[in-house]
Amino acid sequence: MKRISLAHGEGGELTERLIRDVFVKAFGNEEHAGYDAAVIGSAGGKLAVTTDSFVVKPLFFPGGNIGTLAVTGTVNDLAVSGAVPLAMTAGFILEEGFPVSDLKAIVSSMAAEAAKAGVAIVAGDTKVVSKGEADGVFINTAGIGRLYGGSGGEIREGDKVIISGTVGDHGIAILSARNELGLLSDVKSDCASLHPMLGAITEGLSGVRIMRDPTRGGLATALVEICEHHHVTMELWEGTVPVKREVEGACDILGFDPLYLANEGKAVFVTAEEDAERILARLRREDRGKQAQIIGTVTGSGGAGKLLMRTAAGATRRLHRLSGLLLPRIC
Amino acid sequence: MKRISLAHGEGGELTERLIRDVFVKAFGNEEHAGYDAAVIGSAGGKLAVTTDSFVVKPLFFPGGNIGTLAVTGTVNDLAVSGAVPLAMTAGFILEEGFPVSDLKAIVSSMAAEAAKAGVAIVAGDTKVVSKGEADGVFINTAGIGRLYGGSGGEIREGDKVIISGTVGDHGIAILSARNELGLLSDVKSDCASLHPMLGAITEGLSGVRIMRDPTRGGLATALVEICEHHHVTMELWEGTVPVKREVEGACDILGFDPLYLANEGKAVFVTAEEDAERILARLRREDRGKQAQIIGTVTGSGGAGKLLMRTAAGATRRLHRLSGLLLPRIC
Repeated sequence: MKRISLAHGEGGELTERLIRDVFVKAFGNEEHAGYDAAVIGSAGGKLAVTTDSFVVKPLFFPGGNIGTLAVTGTVNDLAVSGAVPLAMTAGFILEEGFPVSDLKAIVSSMAAEAAKAGVAIVAGDTKVVSKGEADGVFINTAGIGRLYGGSGGEIREGDKVIISGTVGDHGIAILSARNELGLLSDVKSDCASLHPMLGAITEGLSGVRIMRDPTRGGLATALVEICEHHHVTMELWEGTVPVKREVEGACDILGFDPLYLANEGKAVFVTAEEDAERILARLRREDRGKQAQIIGTVTGSGGAGKLLMRTAAGATRRLHRLSGLLLPRIC
Repeated sequence: MKRISLAHGEGGELTERLIRDVFVKAFGNEEHAGYDAAVIGSAGGKLAVTTDSFVVKPLFFPGGNIGTLAVTGTVNDLAVSGAVPLAMTAGFILEEGFPVSDLKAIVSSMAAEAAKAGVAIVAGDTKVVSKGEADGVFINTAGIGRLYGGSGGEIREGDKVIISGTVGDHGIAILSARNELGLLSDVKSDCASLHPMLGAITEGLSGVRIMRDPTRGGLATALVEICEHHHVTMELWEGTVPVKREVEGACDILGFDPLYLANEGKAVFVTAEEDAERILARLRREDRGKQAQIIGTVTGSGGAGKLLMRTAAGATRRLHRLSGLLLPRIC
């Protein structure tokens, strides 16, 4: 078994062998193999449910691979929703001819990342399409978490905006792994689980109104969505958003704005004004929060909601969602 | 907006418009749009979790389309697990250039089918890949259900095997929709939700040990899996498995065995001997159970488990899982 064949997706003998040899071996979910649904306990209360498909190209990149991303992306959607990840599912769409060794490497990264985040991969699915009808492998996940309600409260004037670290690392890592632009850079993807970090922060401290992970569309798009959803005006302060020197350099050359590049291990918070410094200090005690910064503030409410950038000179310009095409297939 | 472009998958303005105009409009999950996770209530107890990817080709076929299938397939995995569907997720991988009108038709079928089954589509995701890197649209789902534990108990000698209706309809419908074999047939896919039918049967009657939906790999593969998992020997009685005349005819011409063709709206039961007739009678009161039949029995336990076919002449031959390639991309 060196390469995936169409028969691996037929639901018969070869599918069963692939499941046993690759998935069950890595994920250790033996008891559920071959059955239609997995069973998990629920202590009652509210559940957070999320889904994501991963089509990143290339499949392997500095700092991770599509499998790492599939787990961290799912865990992070739950974590920023104020939920403790309970379980996740993983479905694979494989292209005929895909090397089984690559699949094993991907699946093993998933298992390692899931173990780190303490989430069980409880159910799976495998489909195979003909050569040329998919691009290697696509991974689809769903995540289920127990809501502990770590964040909440209405966003108010004076609230602060905090980012947990540098932005744009993932976007530039993917670009440079593609090598399409002759870009030489050793920027690694930031892909990492935000659980349990976010739980530790929101359970210990009050004042977190909302958390988001700024993936596709970048920090600017995530904040525009918050502004529109909550009908508030938010101002970012130019020069306060942390960006790695290499990311900045690559953006200058390529004409990208780091605010619109994808991140895969960062959280952005809106917090009460009086709690912002304490939350910032707590974040900075975490490995993944050392470069956290307060980057802006809520200046008003009402209307459709908008995001502004205040320049050093005191002028403001409006930031919109990512518009048009920046980087296809980054997650 | 006539065709899907790469920008529709970028997480920016066009993604947001696609979500609002197509998905939120059809699924009515407005409050969750644009956020990372949906919230559902859970009354405690055990949850069934399932996932599936749908890559059927062609996307539209007699009796349904990939969207119908995505909902019924997910609902059925929960239903045969003895769970009431609570919520499902739907992720879309779209090929650049895919007609938006086709996407709307698919999504509208999903909404209709979800309404029929009483399941909410609570979270979604959209990715777009370049032309030639996927085949139109792939749909990935996860389903969450509340286990009511409708089935259970150890499988014993004397237990009966019941199928809820004709087998092979979906497989032949897909083949004939492909038109690759010059096959003229008006067989429709049987794709339909088994919920609430299965709940009605298992909540009203005791004696159901196990339920499965024999999709990929067909009835034979599903039963082999039960035999191996539970270490029992099972005998099917030749001539008792209901097969539509047109399906039988197509199989004769093409050399397929209906026992290995996919079904998308059938359930197979193993029941206690003394309850089999009552369960059969109850099934036949349902629209989707009118052609239910007792098709075999458990003849022993222990060992690795195997499935046998007893011929009219009294001889037996062993049935294995589907081996090798039968029909690619049927679900």
